[in-house]
Amino acid sequence: MSSGLRVLLRLDFPQTSRSLNRSLPRQFTEGVRQCRVGRRLLSTPASVSQTQTSTPPPPPPPHPELSRWRRALQTIGRVTLITIVTTGGTFYYITQKDRHPGSQLPHDPSKKNIVVVGSGWGSTAFLKSLDTAEYNVTVISPRNFFLFTPLLPSVAVGTLASKSILQPIRYMTRHKERKITVIEAQAKSVDPIAKTITFADESEVQGEVSSTTIPFDYLVYAVGAETQTFGIPGVKEHACFMKEIQDAERFKRRFMDCVESAGFPGQREEEIERLLHMAVVGGGPTGIEVSGELHDFLEDDLKAWYPELSNKIKITLIEALPSVLPMFSRELIDYTVSTFKESKIDILTGTMVKEIKDKSVVLQMPDKSIKEVPVGLVVWAGGNKARDVSVDLMSRLSDAQKNKRGITVDDHLRMAGTDGTIFALGDCTSSQYAPTAQVASQQGAYLARMFRQFAKRDALLEQVSAAKQEGTNTESLEKQLKKAENLRPFHYSHQGSLAYIGSEKAIADLEFFHHKFASGGVATFLFWRSAYLSTLFSMRNRVLVATDWLKVKLFGRDLVRD
Amino acid sequence: MSSGLRVLLRLDFPQTSRSLNRSLPRQFTEGVRQCRVGRRLLSTPASVSQTQTSTPPPPPPPHPELSRWRRALQTIGRVTLITIVTTGGTFYYITQKDRHPGSQLPHDPSKKNIVVVGSGWGSTAFLKSLDTAEYNVTVISPRNFFLFTPLLPSVAVGTLASKSILQPIRYMTRHKERKITVIEAQAKSVDPIAKTITFADESEVQGEVSSTTIPFDYLVYAVGAETQTFGIPGVKEHACFMKEIQDAERFKRRFMDCVESAGFPGQREEEIERLLHMAVVGGGPTGIEVSGELHDFLEDDLKAWYPELSNKIKITLIEALPSVLPMFSRELIDYTVSTFKESKIDILTGTMVKEIKDKSVVLQMPDKSIKEVPVGLVVWAGGNKARDVSVDLMSRLSDAQKNKRGITVDDHLRMAGTDGTIFALGDCTSSQYAPTAQVASQQGAYLARMFRQFAKRDALLEQVSAAKQEGTNTESLEKQLKKAENLRPFHYSHQGSLAYIGSEKAIADLEFFHHKFASGGVATFLFWRSAYLSTLFSMRNRVLVATDWLKVKLFGRDLVRD
Repeated sequence: MSSGLRVLLRLDFPQTSRSLNRSLPRQFTEGVRQCRVGRRLLSTPASVSQTQTSTPPPPPPPHPELSRWRRALQTIGRVTLITIVTTGGTFYYITQKDRHPGSQLPHDPSKKNIVVVGSGWGSTAFLKSLDTAEYNVTVISPRNFFLFTPLLPSVAVGTLASKSILQPIRYMTRHKERKITVIEAQAKSVDPIAKTITFADESEVQGEVSSTTIPFDYLVYAVGAETQTFGIPGVKEHACFMKEIQDAERFKRRFMDCVESAGFPGQREEEIERLLHMAVVGGGPTGIEVSGELHDFLEDDLKAWYPELSNKIKITLIEALPSVLPMFSRELIDYTVSTFKESKIDILTGTMVKEIKDKSVVLQMPDKSIKEVPVGLVVWAGGNKARDVSVDLMSRLSDAQKNKRGITVDDHLRMAGTDGTIFALGDCTSSQYAPTAQVASQQGAYLARMFRQFAKRDALLEQVSAAKQEGTNTESLEKQLKKAENLRPFHYSHQGSLAYIGSEKAIADLEFFHHKFASGGVATFLFWRSAYLSTLFSMRNRVLVATDWLKVKLFGRDLVRD
Repeated sequence: MSSGLRVLLRLDFPQTSRSLNRSLPRQFTEGVRQCRVGRRLLSTPASVSQTQTSTPPPPPPPHPELSRWRRALQTIGRVTLITIVTTGGTFYYITQKDRHPGSQLPHDPSKKNIVVVGSGWGSTAFLKSLDTAEYNVTVISPRNFFLFTPLLPSVAVGTLASKSILQPIRYMTRHKERKITVIEAQAKSVDPIAKTITFADESEVQGEVSSTTIPFDYLVYAVGAETQTFGIPGVKEHACFMKEIQDAERFKRRFMDCVESAGFPGQREEEIERLLHMAVVGGGPTGIEVSGELHDFLEDDLKAWYPELSNKIKITLIEALPSVLPMFSRELIDYTVSTFKESKIDILTGTMVKEIKDKSVVLQMPDKSIKEVPVGLVVWAGGNKARDVSVDLMSRLSDAQKNKRGITVDDHLRMAGTDGTIFALGDCTSSQYAPTAQVASQQGAYLARMFRQFAKRDALLEQVSAAKQEGTNTESLEKQLKKAENLRPFHYSHQGSLAYIGSEKAIADLEFFHHKFASGGVATFLFWRSAYLSTLFSMRNRVLVATDWLKVKLFGRDLVRD
């Protein structure tokens, strides 16, 4: 065989090289000619210096233009080359290191067990900065990935690919010092007394064992929330949510489906307008960004590929409050409203959704009149609601957990009514903070610090008891212990609010050293992009998102309905 | 407002620039230092020539090393720079031209109507080379995109993103001279006598009108085929097909689901092995490539992120015939088999699938014994079967259409039993050719040439009749007409067969000028890649696929189960 194979390979090379070289010769040869020219020019001064030794002829006419041009070219060329080589090298090195995590310490029976529930902002930030050497960690989540939620609206219109804002949990956990067990399962119930958690694999494929209960020493509870529908009829059945990655993909599919159905031969004019009317409910950042991205999709792509339909697409933003973006400063709200006016996006404030039907939304207008508006697609960017597992958990501690909105925690994020071994963070809690990624990730990082302190405290406790047995002086130890036992409360520092409003414009309310800056426009859009790029958890995601942005600039968004 | 906006923008700039510059300063400054050095070195010879006029000092010690190094650096630098600038420029220009198609001629009532059914290889090749100035064209397909089927197995394991091998039909049709109507609908029935086609929008979103019938002058029928299950029980219910883009996405999801379920705590060892046993049915190129890609996914990625499970994953390829890849030459079959042996992929030839159950496949072994094998996932890469609409169409012409395998056509691709206005091509036909992309696209291109000839013929006919009325001499015209009426039959020229077999190895049976080359190995893999890149219909897809390959090299495949 091997000899036979060698024959195959010999046969094989000529074709390959031919097929491969086909692509670049032109620029290459051009480049080579260029550099020959360069060398000839370079050699002249040297030859001059030799001839001068005998009889000095008139100095060669200087070509300042040429030489300056040449030097500039050389310079830029060298800079480019060096930049490419250095960055390329480092970059490749980093990626390969990331791709091949080493072996990890096994779980250690003598260490305490932390069970982390959820894989959102809170859990991920916690895991990122936790010192796993001190604990055996288990993560339970129905998703085996972290979702970078702020960019979800970009996925919904195909500006970004879904994969670009997803980060498999294991990409992080496999790089920690001690093994972290990751279980893809839905948390079903938590017993705060027996300190156990029950969870089940509810995915399509299931093994013999698909539900089990495990104990924990500490529970980090960060299951997030589900979308609040306020019991409005038809929302669950007919609206598109904007919370999970599947929601964004479903939106894209349905939107393109509306466009294609509008193009079906013999469609009535009213029906075409109905199919191409997109209603976005909720004037928060998500609703605003979905509207903005939709407008971009329309301007940048649909106009080119569906010229007969694009001018009939209509976007309406519906908000029950008297104003959109309540968390932003007045001037930015006005700026957003005027930008939307230019973009022909209607904003209906003080308007309540009473019902969502298959082909229309029933609205209560500011003047309390009821109006039924035909729509092709409704996006529901409403608020949060506690998940069933959280409701169940709170009901088990009904004396301490009276707030139905979410779990009540003290200022160390300890769940009220427990012995301080259950911590809750992020959207599943009801705190004075807004349910944002910023809050959740700061809470996660805070908890990781707390756990480092716990480990120190436990170690000192052991030393003290040991010292006491030996009868030696424990004063200094106890002083350290006191220090270790004094826990700092969680403090949230607001970095500011950002939102994309379409047409390559963004708005930002920022705080630097207690100074507020309000800014909106194209420059803020660039800031928005760089801010999100740097917030993305991994180099991988940064590159993927950046290349997606480049792809859209070059090729536009795709119109596929798959 | 505008003044307010200006204020906002002024506030805005400093932050932006800061946030943007953060990224590159290091290499940049480095580069600048470099070029300063460069300039100083350059100036030395000149200064020397000046000093020499008075008293000749010992010539400065030459630094051949340094200078050669420097010149090389300059050269490469300049080449790099020029390459980047030229390619970048051209590239950007092309992409932007592609993105902004101009206006098109409207449909012309005096022209004949061509209805094209399907958006696969046949239709796309036909549309690509058809001269639309002569016809009003309508395309009907349930997919608003073309799928590059040969790379589907790569999508199934996440080597490529689905979007990368999809090309929206409008990206092509919008660039044609005359408007092409694209309708996203499922063909339901064709009436070859009345020359009408009935189709329906069967997608999730539907308008008032979702089904209609339109007439045609010519029908180009290229609906492809559906997967042949040979009536084996359980195939439809439990197996993953590998024909549509959704099949590939479903496979990825189910595969990762199997892996995660195997990792569920307390899973029995046998059950883990069951969940991680992947069976691929069908020893054709698709089956081989799926197995090979699966093996790559295992080696390159799962080993790193699921170390506790990866060594338990098992791949089995099942083929009813005595050998895999019947269309390839003996030596390449042997090479594939030995490569699979190294890759620990079991091949069961002469083995028939009797039934597929929820958690197992029932096999009839070569010795006729029946064996039930536990599996987590079954891929069905079986043969083709006529679609219902084709069966219905054939039944309407039962005298001429006796072959149940597919539509019978003459050697001009005219459907037997029709008056020559219905053409069938690709997998929906039963010809002496294999049901491959190569055949279908050559047939499509052939048909486009035929239609150019028809247009010429019709024009001449008019001229002749006009001339006859005027009583002028029609001899030369009739000579031309005769030439235009003489149609060349379709002739298929086989370019060869290619298949990827995993571990960066491919096999190729090629024909150049009637000379056969058989080759397999890593070099052939590079050839395989470049061949597919050049076959991809658009620059856009080429870039997307190439960047995906690069991404996988850098970051690996993602493990997301979404």
